[in-house]
Amino acid sequence: MKPIFKNAVVGQSGGPTAAINATLAGVIRGAAKQSGEIKKLFGMKNGIDGLLSENLVDLSRDFGDEDALDLLSHTPAAALGSCRHKLPKPEEDPAFFEKLISIFQKYEIGYFFYIGGNDSMDTVAKLSRYTKEHDYPMVVMGVPKTIDNDLVGTDHTPGFGSAAKYIAVTIEEIIRDCAVYTVPAVTIVEIMGRDAGWLTAASSLGRFANGIEPDLVYLPERTFDLDRFFSDLKKALERHPNVVVAVSEGIRFADGHYVGEGTQQGAKDVFGHAYLAGTGKALELAVKEHFGCKVRSIELNLPQRCASHLASGVDLAESQGVGEAAVQAAAKGVSCSMMTMQRAEGELYRIDFLPKDVAEIANKIRFVPDEFINEEGNGVTDACCRYLAPLIAGEATCRFENGLPKFFSL
Amino acid sequence: MKPIFKNAVVGQSGGPTAAINATLAGVIRGAAKQSGEIKKLFGMKNGIDGLLSENLVDLSRDFGDEDALDLLSHTPAAALGSCRHKLPKPEEDPAFFEKLISIFQKYEIGYFFYIGGNDSMDTVAKLSRYTKEHDYPMVVMGVPKTIDNDLVGTDHTPGFGSAAKYIAVTIEEIIRDCAVYTVPAVTIVEIMGRDAGWLTAASSLGRFANGIEPDLVYLPERTFDLDRFFSDLKKALERHPNVVVAVSEGIRFADGHYVGEGTQQGAKDVFGHAYLAGTGKALELAVKEHFGCKVRSIELNLPQRCASHLASGVDLAESQGVGEAAVQAAAKGVSCSMMTMQRAEGELYRIDFLPKDVAEIANKIRFVPDEFINEEGNGVTDACCRYLAPLIAGEATCRFENGLPKFFSL
Repeated sequence: MKPIFKNAVVGQSGGPTAAINATLAGVIRGAAKQSGEIKKLFGMKNGIDGLLSENLVDLSRDFGDEDALDLLSHTPAAALGSCRHKLPKPEEDPAFFEKLISIFQKYEIGYFFYIGGNDSMDTVAKLSRYTKEHDYPMVVMGVPKTIDNDLVGTDHTPGFGSAAKYIAVTIEEIIRDCAVYTVPAVTIVEIMGRDAGWLTAASSLGRFANGIEPDLVYLPERTFDLDRFFSDLKKALERHPNVVVAVSEGIRFADGHYVGEGTQQGAKDVFGHAYLAGTGKALELAVKEHFGCKVRSIELNLPQRCASHLASGVDLAESQGVGEAAVQAAAKGVSCSMMTMQRAEGELYRIDFLPKDVAEIANKIRFVPDEFINEEGNGVTDACCRYLAPLIAGEATCRFENGLPKFFSL
Repeated sequence: MKPIFKNAVVGQSGGPTAAINATLAGVIRGAAKQSGEIKKLFGMKNGIDGLLSENLVDLSRDFGDEDALDLLSHTPAAALGSCRHKLPKPEEDPAFFEKLISIFQKYEIGYFFYIGGNDSMDTVAKLSRYTKEHDYPMVVMGVPKTIDNDLVGTDHTPGFGSAAKYIAVTIEEIIRDCAVYTVPAVTIVEIMGRDAGWLTAASSLGRFANGIEPDLVYLPERTFDLDRFFSDLKKALERHPNVVVAVSEGIRFADGHYVGEGTQQGAKDVFGHAYLAGTGKALELAVKEHFGCKVRSIELNLPQRCASHLASGVDLAESQGVGEAAVQAAAKGVSCSMMTMQRAEGELYRIDFLPKDVAEIANKIRFVPDEFINEEGNGVTDACCRYLAPLIAGEATCRFENGLPKFFSL
């Protein structure tokens, strides 16, 4: 249904990435090009919270300012701010959605763009359902963003390539660092990814590039068994003294408990997800006790999602492209969708943008498939490395001034 | 005393850095230029251990291979491998030194270069003393390397600038990441530096570049007081919700105990230094208990010393220069010295190389001086930022292939 109003609003939600601002720049560029359909573009500060409190900024002023938009594209985190706000179900709290609609009417907003991951697509799906069920003439579009790469319906997610590149480069530097001593030592690198092991799999990206990769890689898609881990480790230590292991923060024992739960039990985030801390630390202590050798654990932590200085060129280009494509589709009347990225068949890597029903995407998780995990469950396959390789190509160097990156500020 | 032999040997020792291979490249280039004095250049694998086991490689084959030397300069860790081996005192174990001399004679080695930090300069000082006391005609030269910047007699140390740049950039990215939410949260970033706070001070480098720096910075040069910390934190949380704190791993309470000792008590490394783990984690738990707010700790860990992808251009150039200068001085007969870097007076940043008696340098620690720490002991002064700024200038971009850095392998 064609929107009655010609203004648009865009928000960023969920965890920051090195590429979410490139997508925001894409939405701004896209809106500037659709002047026939879209008049003003508002930005909500801190996601849906900013919309509810009418904390909006006029992004139309950046239309055509290529210098500012380029700087924005290379800036980490989320220029508009973010939130973690789980929307109620429309049938449970209709007043909430009526309030949203009244704000849309007040600001003459006919287009709603929300850039985010799984939880944000839940917001998009609920708002889509509400507008559909109430025949409210409004375009609602999700724009994917998550370093976790766990959204269904898309070949991969914007933001993942840059995080994967950061992990691959950092792991290679760590492996080289660890290789300088001859004393047997185990280094355990803990990588983000609560449910899916995509980021941890990226630690093996050196395989075809330079032959340097971790000795062992454990994803949450496989049950973690401590005895098998010790046996894997024993074999690795027989091959060379400097063993490097990549583990996902989300690995669990057969009984379903997270390996990291030992150190910080029971904490949960606002979405009810178990709060993980210390998978690497827990394994460090276990290895030290079992082998008695030198052990170190490294949690790659926040830099995985905000290291713009090492962003992937392909990722930033696609992240900006997906934002622009979402606006273009919206201007043509596509709604209740998330813009996805489809990999073209053939040797040459190419991505096509395609909108898909957001209801089919929200609240699902795309796991690393079986053919990407080796039989032993302690590494990834060549097919996995081939899938990942194009996503980290190209260096999206940010501008440096006085030895530090120059970033955009709203 | 002029050496009787014309071959040279070089070793790398102590912790890896992003710049120690640039210094090795400098020594190789230097030796290639001194063909009148130096014939062959051997590299000891894994420092003094490789010399003792006669595990030597002929580095003369790389003389003139500018492509290989350039790649080597941009490669992290230590291409020759490293060791942590504390030499006995000459008077306590003369046999040890006699064995070294016999190896020097076997390989006709008249020049000894050792690239390393405090513990490595202890090795250089002991060998210097032995050769002096025994009138053994040999040139012994230390070449500085430590990310800790805690060697005396030099303006700063090769390797420090790159680590400082990594820390400054990463801190800025983390601060931007943390700023996206409106919920009060404390992020504690733990930075390397057992004794001196130079690396932690580098977290404030954004002050003049872009105005972004941690709210609070705690160095080991000041006693850490938990109540004062809570009071500092309370004030910071009143200013804005996203407080970022930089702490050195080496901060201690008034009773001399390390703050991080709580989580891993009593462990010591081979030099008898207390093994620290978890200063950030200990403070995270303390803040969570006291304030009840969201708290996160991030240990920057190994990437601080091996992130070649973000090396400082000035640091790599100086690191290569100090290696070359050490060989040049050695060829002129300078011995029992460490090559130092002296900052020229005046506005324009410039470094001059100057050899200094290694006995005056080994086993001393250069702390962050009082005028670089603010009165409250929770931050650094403008003078400190001005001292640090030139050291992170320039980006020493490594070559990328297939999205990953291309590094040198022996």
